[in-house]
Amino acid sequence: MLKRYFPILTWARAYNGGALSNDLMAAVIVTIMLIPQSLAYALLAGLPPVVGLYASILPLVAYAIFGTSRTLAVGPVAVVSLMTASAVGAVAAQGTAEYLEAAITLAALSGVMLAILGLLRLGFLANLLSHPVISGFITASGILIATSQVRHILGVQGGGENWPEMLGSLMRNIASTNFNTLAVGLFATAFLFWVRKGAKPALIAIGFKPRAAEMTAKAGPVVAVMLTIAAVALFALETKGVRLVGAVPQGLPPFALPSTDMELIAQLWVPALLISIIGFVESVSVAQTLAAKRRQRIDPDQELVGLGASNIASAFSGGYPVTGGFARSVVNFDAGAETPAAGAYTAVGIALASLFLTPLLFYLPIATLAATIIVAVLSLVDLKTPGVLWRYSKSDFSAHIVTIVVTLLMGVETGVIAGVGAGLLLYLWKASRPHAAIVGRVPETEHFRNVERHDVLTLPHILSIRIDESLTYLNARWLEEYVLERVAERPELRHVILMCSAVNAIDASGLESLEAINHRLQDGDICLHLSEVKGPVMDRLGQSHFLQGLGGRVFLSQDRAFSELATDDGRAPDPLDPLAARGMI
Amino acid sequence: MLKRYFPILTWARAYNGGALSNDLMAAVIVTIMLIPQSLAYALLAGLPPVVGLYASILPLVAYAIFGTSRTLAVGPVAVVSLMTASAVGAVAAQGTAEYLEAAITLAALSGVMLAILGLLRLGFLANLLSHPVISGFITASGILIATSQVRHILGVQGGGENWPEMLGSLMRNIASTNFNTLAVGLFATAFLFWVRKGAKPALIAIGFKPRAAEMTAKAGPVVAVMLTIAAVALFALETKGVRLVGAVPQGLPPFALPSTDMELIAQLWVPALLISIIGFVESVSVAQTLAAKRRQRIDPDQELVGLGASNIASAFSGGYPVTGGFARSVVNFDAGAETPAAGAYTAVGIALASLFLTPLLFYLPIATLAATIIVAVLSLVDLKTPGVLWRYSKSDFSAHIVTIVVTLLMGVETGVIAGVGAGLLLYLWKASRPHAAIVGRVPETEHFRNVERHDVLTLPHILSIRIDESLTYLNARWLEEYVLERVAERPELRHVILMCSAVNAIDASGLESLEAINHRLQDGDICLHLSEVKGPVMDRLGQSHFLQGLGGRVFLSQDRAFSELATDDGRAPDPLDPLAARGMI
Repeated sequence: MLKRYFPILTWARAYNGGALSNDLMAAVIVTIMLIPQSLAYALLAGLPPVVGLYASILPLVAYAIFGTSRTLAVGPVAVVSLMTASAVGAVAAQGTAEYLEAAITLAALSGVMLAILGLLRLGFLANLLSHPVISGFITASGILIATSQVRHILGVQGGGENWPEMLGSLMRNIASTNFNTLAVGLFATAFLFWVRKGAKPALIAIGFKPRAAEMTAKAGPVVAVMLTIAAVALFALETKGVRLVGAVPQGLPPFALPSTDMELIAQLWVPALLISIIGFVESVSVAQTLAAKRRQRIDPDQELVGLGASNIASAFSGGYPVTGGFARSVVNFDAGAETPAAGAYTAVGIALASLFLTPLLFYLPIATLAATIIVAVLSLVDLKTPGVLWRYSKSDFSAHIVTIVVTLLMGVETGVIAGVGAGLLLYLWKASRPHAAIVGRVPETEHFRNVERHDVLTLPHILSIRIDESLTYLNARWLEEYVLERVAERPELRHVILMCSAVNAIDASGLESLEAINHRLQDGDICLHLSEVKGPVMDRLGQSHFLQGLGGRVFLSQDRAFSELATDDGRAPDPLDPLAARGMI
Repeated sequence: MLKRYFPILTWARAYNGGALSNDLMAAVIVTIMLIPQSLAYALLAGLPPVVGLYASILPLVAYAIFGTSRTLAVGPVAVVSLMTASAVGAVAAQGTAEYLEAAITLAALSGVMLAILGLLRLGFLANLLSHPVISGFITASGILIATSQVRHILGVQGGGENWPEMLGSLMRNIASTNFNTLAVGLFATAFLFWVRKGAKPALIAIGFKPRAAEMTAKAGPVVAVMLTIAAVALFALETKGVRLVGAVPQGLPPFALPSTDMELIAQLWVPALLISIIGFVESVSVAQTLAAKRRQRIDPDQELVGLGASNIASAFSGGYPVTGGFARSVVNFDAGAETPAAGAYTAVGIALASLFLTPLLFYLPIATLAATIIVAVLSLVDLKTPGVLWRYSKSDFSAHIVTIVVTLLMGVETGVIAGVGAGLLLYLWKASRPHAAIVGRVPETEHFRNVERHDVLTLPHILSIRIDESLTYLNARWLEEYVLERVAERPELRHVILMCSAVNAIDASGLESLEAINHRLQDGDICLHLSEVKGPVMDRLGQSHFLQGLGGRVFLSQDRAFSELATDDGRAPDPLDPLAARGMI
């Protein structure tokens, strides 16, 4: 029980020297990757860069204690940073103390919500975000994030919550482009794109082993940071209008308290919930992918608790909302991390950086951080998915496109809500009109198939309907309409057989509809029969009064039902009936 | 096409003398029933009684033109009147011109919404109201309505939106009970209860034929009205504190215009939507029940248009929201109504009453109308359903009880929303963890059954999982967890077979989960196979790249899959393998 809520108890006992050296190695690589990323994502969230470092220390320790993934690397990530900027920007102006306080409060709210969802085991709510909605949201977020950083590359003012605002703001300010900043920004962007594709082969060419080359290439952003700091120092770019990170407070994260202002909380709880769910979905899918590679398991509900603890830790140490990052976790995994202790060692690395490296960051151009963000997020933009979805499923395609368009045009929060709404609406629409078929017997077999697709035998006084779905309240009304409409077309009808081989469950509304159908058929002197009812469904029906009131019978097989009712057409039995000759009875 | 939107074109052409006399007969009976009801329900809605008459004229004509049910009787009904009082009471004080204007605007909004839903064929949204939620809502509304009328029986002031408020208000005012009013109210209530049960046998006893006795008994409320008017006149009760209906404007409904005040519309649109959906669900279920008895059909989407037209007509003639009433429609049907023309004749009857009978209503005690309401709505209270639901389905029971409790404690609007929310949440929860079973072969057959329920054969290197649900985004994450968890328990595993006999559809999220499972299994050197995939599902899979990437194969039958994979356990083939001896390959 204790182990379920404190997964550290499971792995810490068996911790040994081998795991220690592997975890330390991974931690060094992740730390080098995380320093520029954490600064950059804080910038994206509209916060002082050092807040990114703060959000990369205690949250990692908290996750090491409460998280169930062995290799997930928690910290600031791009999409959640953008959502933070959007949420906090609505209640305070960037650069003010209120803005920072709101970001801290957002982390606290998100942490509490995640923990509560986890303790109540409500992780299933994340299911409301379908794959097409998530991927549409990530694509649109990637575009928004990249666009939001262009102004830092140009060295101009600007802002905006959505694409039209961002583009408009860029258009208005493009005339004041600072060409020194642009030079730094373009260099950093080009360098980072090259690192992504060309660094590994280049390192191998000069004698690195493939794995070492790959790990070394992860230091690309740090190299970009060092090169541009050197350029600033060399050319005194700070005097030429290039914006720098400037003075970063040196030292460990402060102890912070989230606000208890109820008005602020009332304004932030919806964005906090959306950030929690998006962060959780992203994180858990990375964690699952990595766990499966080593045949390990994660517990999604405990993951909620782990991420909740991380965010609460972030709030109390002056940070902002965090979650498990995709790229960073993959690096952590590939670098050989064996246990969550690697995350704790990373936290130590970042803490050391906060203590000793911050003075070096004074000369770091903002444009370099913007380049880091742009190169990182463009990989989020996925232009193949729309085509794949279009071919596979028009309704999934619609939900995907709605999410992309609304996110781009109206911002991240409206985008997520629209995506969930569109997905649910389409689901309910489909669930409300399931597939059903009128079936007949395949000649000389016991099989029954759709009359529209196969050449099958039917009788005018029997209507056999196969329902390819569970009967729930969403399709109960449809069922009544469907059956009664088919019956209204057939004046000779005496028996309706519902073939229930694909009915996995019948809820109270479905049952009531069956009862209504039964009564209405009885009013028209028609018997309702069921066939091939599954065991658990039959057990449930037995607990109701439905079977007592049923006009007809429940047959074990459709074939049995059809054969036994074939002669009961309301006419006197006739041994020379052509039906018999046709082998139908 | 024109006939679809104007169902009158279908039936009016074949209209003849027989139908005319039947429709006229039914109209007379419904008119007699409707006069006291329409006055009483207007009172319940907090409106002047005459508004009830206005809402019973043009709306009936509009429905006769646009409605698809032959026998539905449209007009004011109890539950919608209560919802109107709740919605309008939130924006204006009873008795003011603003209150009436808001009620008219509510009817217009509801009419426009219904018509739009109908033209867009969005009737399926009404499915969100499951039977347990609707029945809970109706029961709670019946209790609220009856409670709200007790003050008129006692002759005291009072009010309240929910049960605690109503009961508190009654407690505070009970000391000022007017005993003359109480006498009238108790007499009317007792008389109406007796009419309900005892009038028919009594009439038969004095020589009426059963059908005539039943129809005559429907005049009970009119008799109660006449008797209490006589009592007022006889005992000069108006001087003894008995509240009377008083002066009712004589004449046809005025032409009214709904408000175009955007602020008012912003306040009313949510209640208007709830009233529309509740009204539609109630109406369409009555209409379907009656249509089925004569093997007729109704078109639910066109019903939305018909009810929309009725409400718009109500708004433009000084009325308030209307819908198809249950009791009245049954009477209309039983009285022999053949076409919607009966409704138009009823409208003529009510118009004549508005022109000539309103002076008689001056002496009508409010307590009589309250008694009419109480007796009518207590039949809505259904105390059996909770027990039935408890036995059949705990989750349907929960949704039912949540709806009742929230409606009673927090009022009708919150009650409906809570019911829909609870129903949807429970549905999503169940949909997110569908039934699945590990299956094995029943010895010496081709059948595969749940290993937990049957004594079946399995092999350590093969895992056969039967999924009893379509794969959608709601259960995609569950699927990954379920399969990978089962795999993690089995170190010897080499093949996973997903038996898809109950999978009716796979959406894009489900497909992506299958791909993820396939890749993760490949990482662990395990092949994923499918068996018994349905035709339409297979067609869809063929349009994706899934089958190309699949590690294993797609087998037509589970038996074939199991037999062919039985020997492929990663060991060298051995003709003396005990598997062969056990008949498993």
